[in-house]
Amino acid sequence: MRVYFDTFEVSTSKRVELINITERVEEVVEKSGVKDGICLVFAPHATAAVIVNEDERGLKEDIVRWLEQSFPRDGGWRHNLVDDNASAHLASAFTSSCRVFPVKGGGLVRGTWQSIFLVEMDGPRKRRVVVEVLGI
Amino acid sequence: MRVYFDTFEVSTSKRVELINITERVEEVVEKSGVKDGICLVFAPHATAAVIVNEDERGLKEDIVRWLEQSFPRDGGWRHNLVDDNASAHLASAFTSSCRVFPVKGGGLVRGTWQSIFLVEMDGPRKRRVVVEVLGI
Amino acid sequence: MRVYFDTFEVSTSKRVELINITERVEEVVEKSGVKDGICLVFAPHATAAVIVNEDERGLKEDIVRWLEQSFPRDGGWRHNLVDDNASAHLASAFTSSCRVFPVKGGGLVRGTWQSIFLVEMDGPRKRRVVVEVLGI
Repeated sequence: MRVYFDTFEVSTSKRVELINITERVEEVVEKSGVKDGICLVFAPHATAAVIVNEDERGLKEDIVRWLEQSFPRDGGWRHNLVDDNASAHLASAFTSSCRVFPVKGGGLVRGTWQSIFLVEMDGPRKRRVVVEVLGI
Repeated sequence: MRVYFDTFEVSTSKRVELINITERVEEVVEKSGVKDGICLVFAPHATAAVIVNEDERGLKEDIVRWLEQSFPRDGGWRHNLVDDNASAHLASAFTSSCRVFPVKGGGLVRGTWQSIFLVEMDGPRKRRVVVEVLGI
Repeated sequence: MRVYFDTFEVSTSKRVELINITERVEEVVEKSGVKDGICLVFAPHATAAVIVNEDERGLKEDIVRWLEQSFPRDGGWRHNLVDDNASAHLASAFTSSCRVFPVKGGGLVRGTWQSIFLVEMDGPRKRRVVVEVLGI
């Protein structure tokens, strides 16, 4: 059994933004040498998340708008008295900072329209993404 | 260590619908021969999801209603200019198309009221569900 | 390869409440003897969930308020005719009762502000949390 880790950095340029990290995740799966197993994509952050969906320009704008509507920045949040980013914490908590994929035949199992995105919700910042591949 | 994969198809009959797939997942766990490990239930789709909850008729209607309210079909989404299913993409991205379960003593660990559902959000269609069991 | 399970109980005291379980999860990781692998934190309940975020008093109140707004108790839910807790089921289904973490060098990989919470949404009750550590 093999367990392989890799970490890469992503620079975000807006407060709320989607960054397609599919290729970088697939490179890690390839380097891992794991044929059959699983792949965790994990953001070690409380104001970012990881999601899976289609990389279409309009849809990415829709996702940003949905996030801003569902986790409004000016929601009278108490955490904003400590640090002005409660909406990003809420969005991260409910979106989740981890996604798990099957790895089969040396590659990530994902649908045609399933790209992997780091979701920045309190940028711009430098973010880290931990990719772990575990299997045989 | 064993890694066992199976895929099955689900035919949905409505635009938004919950399909109970618990038995089919448990059959895969049994066939896998894995005693202790994990089970991934993964929908390789960007407009469907997997959730876990009680299989009660009223609740399933509530879940459909909550989805339709939280991800409104007519939300002025930009992706609808490309393909009229932005609400399904949004729901899939934030609900997640993967759930993970412990496998212990040859069976899935789940609570009494935890059934597994494929959530169709852009049906009717044929959908695939990938079940992976990994362990010893 | 090792697969290690532990289960602990959490007593909740309110209807909606966050309980920090990070230390208890980390104790299980330590006891497991697993150096590199993954850790599943799983609540076998249909009206509770597991989330990851910062343990700040105001933020925890914000999270409770967001849950109560997004999954309103008095939403005219059909499941309330059966059992008066539809909002808790909805919140559990969409928040997820499982979170997965990398385990590296014998410890849980998590960001500075990533604490693990059991989210009670239909308390007060006694809840169980299943922690599974799998790896080498």
